[in-house]
This record gives sequence, C-alpha cells and structure tokens, in this order.
Amino acid sequence: MDQSLHVFLKKEQDDLNQALIRYINTLDIPKRLKDSVLYSINAGGKRLRPLLMKLTCIGLGGKEERIYPAAVALEMIHTYSLIHDDLPAMDDDVYRRGQLTNHMKFDEATAILAGDGLLTNSFHAISTTDLYSAEEKIEIITKLSTASGLEGMVAGQLLDMEAENKQIPLEELEKIHHLKTGRLISFAVEIGGYLAGVSVEKMKILKRYGDYLGVIFQIQDDILDVEGDQAIIGKSVGSDIENDKSTYPHLLGVDGAKNYKDNYLKEAIKCLADVGLQGTDLENITQYLSDRNQ
Amino acid sequence: MDQSLHVFLKKEQDDLNQALIRYINTLDIPKRLKDSVLYSINAGGKRLRPLLMKLTCIGLGGKEERIYPAAVALEMIHTYSLIHDDLPAMDDDVYRRGQLTNHMKFDEATAILAGDGLLTNSFHAISTTDLYSAEEKIEIITKLSTASGLEGMVAGQLLDMEAENKQIPLEELEKIHHLKTGRLISFAVEIGGYLAGVSVEKMKILKRYGDYLGVIFQIQDDILDVEGDQAIIGKSVGSDIENDKSTYPHLLGVDGAKNYKDNYLKEAIKCLADVGLQGTDLENITQYLSDRNQ
Repeated sequence: MDQSLHVFLKKEQDDLNQALIRYINTLDIPKRLKDSVLYSINAGGKRLRPLLMKLTCIGLGGKEERIYPAAVALEMIHTYSLIHDDLPAMDDDVYRRGQLTNHMKFDEATAILAGDGLLTNSFHAISTTDLYSAEEKIEIITKLSTASGLEGMVAGQLLDMEAENKQIPLEELEKIHHLKTGRLISFAVEIGGYLAGVSVEKMKILKRYGDYLGVIFQIQDDILDVEGDQAIIGKSVGSDIENDKSTYPHLLGVDGAKNYKDNYLKEAIKCLADVGLQGTDLENITQYLSDRNQ
Repeated sequence: MDQSLHVFLKKEQDDLNQALIRYINTLDIPKRLKDSVLYSINAGGKRLRPLLMKLTCIGLGGKEERIYPAAVALEMIHTYSLIHDDLPAMDDDVYRRGQLTNHMKFDEATAILAGDGLLTNSFHAISTTDLYSAEEKIEIITKLSTASGLEGMVAGQLLDMEAENKQIPLEELEKIHHLKTGRLISFAVEIGGYLAGVSVEKMKILKRYGDYLGVIFQIQDDILDVEGDQAIIGKSVGSDIENDKSTYPHLLGVDGAKNYKDNYLKEAIKCLADVGLQGTDLENITQYLSDRNQ
C-alpha cells in the first residue's frame, strides 16, 4: 500500500476513535456496561466504513467534519453486530482480532446488553448532533435503520445461519452477503455522497458501487480463508472449510473466485468514474480492499 | 374494573396490534425471522404503554391517531426487551404469558436477531411515517433512544442482573426499576403530552407521573409474586423469593410495600391533577394498575 495512504488511514482511524469515545463519554452509563462497550469500541476496528464515507464525501466536494455523527453511528452498529455475531448461540467465537470476544471477556448477558445499547444509541448519536438539520437526520436514520434492520443486516445474518452446513447456489450466497455486509458499506458511501449534496442519480450509482465493493470485500475474505497468513489476518485460516460454509472459492474454485472478483472490481471502478471519482483515494482504497492480505 | 374501561382497553389492544402488524407487513423480511418477530408481537401483550400514551394525548386535547407511529415503535422496543430478557444468558425463561418464550419456540440465535431487528426497526417506524414533521420525529427518536439505551432500560437491565443474589438498599432498587421499567412508561406519557402540544412545564410533570407509575407498577408486580394467583398472572408465583431477588415486600414487608405504593399513587394522581387530567380515564387506569391482580 502507498505510504501516504497508510498515514491517511491511520489518522482516519484515530479521528473516528476519538469521535466515538467522545460520544460515549457524554453518556451516564453503569460502569460494567460502559467497560464492555468501550472494550469492543477499542478492539482495533479498521474503521473501513467511516473511511469510505469520508473519502466519498470529500471526493465529491463535501466537508469532511460533517461525516462524524453518521460515521460514529455506523461504527456503533457495526460494533454491536460483531458482539452479537460472536455470541455462543451465533458464531461462538472466542477471539476477534486477536483479543477475547466481548462475551468471553465479560459474560454473555453483558455482551448482549452492550450490543443492544450500542445499537439503540447509534440512533441517539444522530438525533442529538448539532451538525445536521432535522431533515438530514431523518434521511440518515431511515437509511441506517433500513440497511441494518429486519430488511438488511439482521436479515442477512439470519439467512447466513440458515445456510450453514449446506451448499447454496451462488445467487443465494450473493444475496446473503449483500444483506449482511453490502448494505452497511452502501450506506457509508451513499451518506458520504448525500452529505456532499450530490444528486439522487449519483446516490444511486454510489449505492451500486457500495454493493459491488461489499461483494469484492467478501470474496477476498473467502480467498484469505483459503490462502491467507493466519498471523497477519488475526483469525484462524481454513475455518470456512471446517464449518462447511458456502464460499466463493468453494463454488467457483480459487481462480474462478479471483476472476469473479476482478469483474466486480471493474464495475466498481466504472461506478466511481461515473460520479467523477476516478483516480481518487477512494479508487486506491477499492483496489487495496480487493488485493488486501488481511 | 369498570366495564366501559374494559371494552376500551380491548379496543385499544386491537387497534395497536393492527398498527404493529400493518407496519411489519410493509417490510420484506426472511420467513423465519418474520415468523419469530410476529410470534412475539402476537404474544398477547397488554399494550399498557401505548394505552397510557393515547389516554394522555386525548386527555390533553390531542388527536388519538397521532400516537400510532410512536406507540408502535415503543411496543417494538418493549417486545425486543422481553425477547432478550428471556434468553438463557439473561433470565432464562421458558414461558411468558403462558406461551413458550421466543428462543424456546424458535432458537436462541433467531431470538437474538428478532430482538435486534425489532429494536432497529422501531426507529425506522418513526422515521418513515407521514404523520410527524421531521422535528417531531427527531424529538421522539431522541426521547425513545434515551429512555431505552445505554442510559436507560439497557442500563437498568444490567444493574438488575448485578443485583441478583444479593441484598440491595431501597434506593438502589428504586433506581433499577426507574431505569428498567419507569423510563419507557415516562416516555409513553411524555410523548402523549408532546403530541397534544402541551408546554415543556407540563411535560416535566408528566415525566414525573410516569416515574411514579413505573414504581407503582413494579411494587404491585412484587406484591403479586408473593400474594398473586398463578393461574391469573400466567407466570410462576414465588419466583422472586426462589431467585433471592431484592423486592419491595422483601425490604419493607408486604404491608410496608402496600403503604409505600399508596404514597406513590397519591403523588401520581396529584401530578395528573396538576396537568388537568383529574377524573379522567388515565386516573382510572392509574388506580387499576395499582390494584391489578395480574
């Protein structure tokens, strides 16, 4: 990765982490609950979605500081989803990013409540900011709740569980990942464009770009589970095969999956060109996410 | 209970259930997730909070149909909290209102996701309605997320768990119930007043009334656990003692708890008089909730 991009990424993570902690610290939360929430907030997330939101916003002429309340809310939703996904009744994970999962560090009940609280307060973070008008807040809350709720991420998580231990066709796999991962990525870039004041037409293209990027991200995830370096990724390699999960390499072979990903990458980059974002940092990040080794 | 009040309550439950199901049916939800959500929505809730919202709103000169999006959202939050509270890692309940709990009927993962989805979409139900202005939506979303999130109901649930199997002072018990139960009841009456367009001063009094009513409701719950009829209540009697839970009868004796409740009842009815709601259906309901046998 280009060195200047790396520096930029690090600064973005720091800025977003500070904004998140600043928001949490405005609240009066019982100690154990706050500890549990901050544990997962501080667990070293890449802050990919806020970064995409910011790059889209500034690439299209918006002010970067405008993204923070929406980006904080988005990361709170993302963090809650990881806490709940790791629970014994769901993926039953002991480690995430090399650290104990929330329910292992605290306990299951605390982890459930920390997730519920993060989810609830993500909407509070948007509704109480001074940076957006009431109309903007409602637009963002509508899009965020649609992307993450019963028709979005939660639906994807349920379909993903139903698909465990059975082979599903590519179309079904794609739908699951679209809901589970793609919807929040699309939200990030759509809102980045919205806060820059782009046309409805351009927002539709950004949404499509987000959908493609979600698939690219997932295919690379699946490829890394086959080919990746466990020490770099920070989680077990080969767990998909062990769990008999339907993946792109499983359905298409590793080379087939790579070709499939490259086609999506071309489409994604074409979308960026269509909204005037060719050759920008967002294009670099798109390329990086497709090639990443972690 | 007065017969006309009983008829009124039944009609209110039906209207609210229809509004809830109408909202859920606007969404495209995977079958199993929708089944799980509707199972708990249809589990025979008393719809007490929406009723309080409506009685406050119409008692203060507001239009009754205005409450529905806020009342639907409130019941979605209440329903999610019951599903998550019943989970094995939380209260580990097998039955609620005489029916299997969500995770026993479906499975734990589905119950977690149904709860997450109901919580998320409660904000969607408000943000997408035609009945409120953007400013009204933001006011309602802010109050609902505050009442139910990291500073509200979720905090109360965590403190309640921490207090299990140990004796806590009355002040701490009161704080827990204020957060766990009182906050959503206060939200109901505050928003009822808000939608009727009352002054900020009156909203503060309504909030206090809601706080008192929350305590009254909880004390009566505790008394029923000691004195109630299992067949009428629909859950086990004596479970608080069995679980060594701190309760009002435990701390004050049954008669002490009744006296304590009566004092709060006087205060609550005084609040109603202060906002001009003396002698209304809301006063009748307050009295009924204090005396209820289920």
